[in-house]
Amino acid sequence: MVVKHVSEVPNNPVDMSGAEKVRMRLLISEEDGAPNFRMRLFEVEEGGCSPYHSHPYEHEVFVLEGEGMIRSREGNQELKPGSVVFVPPNEEHQFVNRGKGAFKFICLIPLQKP
Amino acid sequence: MVVKHVSEVPNNPVDMSGAEKVRMRLLISEEDGAPNFRMRLFEVEEGGCSPYHSHPYEHEVFVLEGEGMIRSREGNQELKPGSVVFVPPNEEHQFVNRGKGAFKFICLIPLQKP
Repeated sequence: MVVKHVSEVPNNPVDMSGAEKVRMRLLISEEDGAPNFRMRLFEVEEGGCSPYHSHPYEHEVFVLEGEGMIRSREGNQELKPGSVVFVPPNEEHQFVNRGKGAFKFICLIPLQKP
Repeated sequence: MVVKHVSEVPNNPVDMSGAEKVRMRLLISEEDGAPNFRMRLFEVEEGGCSPYHSHPYEHEVFVLEGEGMIRSREGNQELKPGSVVFVPPNEEHQFVNRGKGAFKFICLIPLQKP
């Protein structure tokens, strides 16, 4: 069993084209023995966003803090603490901080990507 | 894409031997199109706990609110908001509310159980 606190996990800048003012903590991964999926915590600073992109695997998201938005082909939808998002494989998406202060969310992905 | 808020998701009592004062919201599942894992939100009322048990699949947990504890063969470990737990397959565990008010956590499981 692995027990830790987010404050102990490095908060690394996301170095990806289109990502602005985004940091990520890798909370649970294969290094902890996870066999199926990874848990990550994203922090998007004021004015920041993730890339507008798609990929062949899903996201399962839970919003912890702040005011944000998810952009997709279907339009924009507002996100706040307690918002839950399922992004299916291959669907374009972008997370945008629309508020004051940080926008924070948990985002899980499968380990075996198609 | 599916966007919802926890407040829209039914909060059902967990009817399982050993579960006391526990409710669960099924946030993301195969009904939303999820191919690999399920996201659930558990609320353990004051004085409540989940069963002390094991099963052949893992848990990935993020604590949202309250003061709790996870029991295992290794002993008891305290949990608070921001605590992260990986419970490997087949490892005995129990979540216990140790504080005043609700103890709330996100818990993910794989869809394909061994």
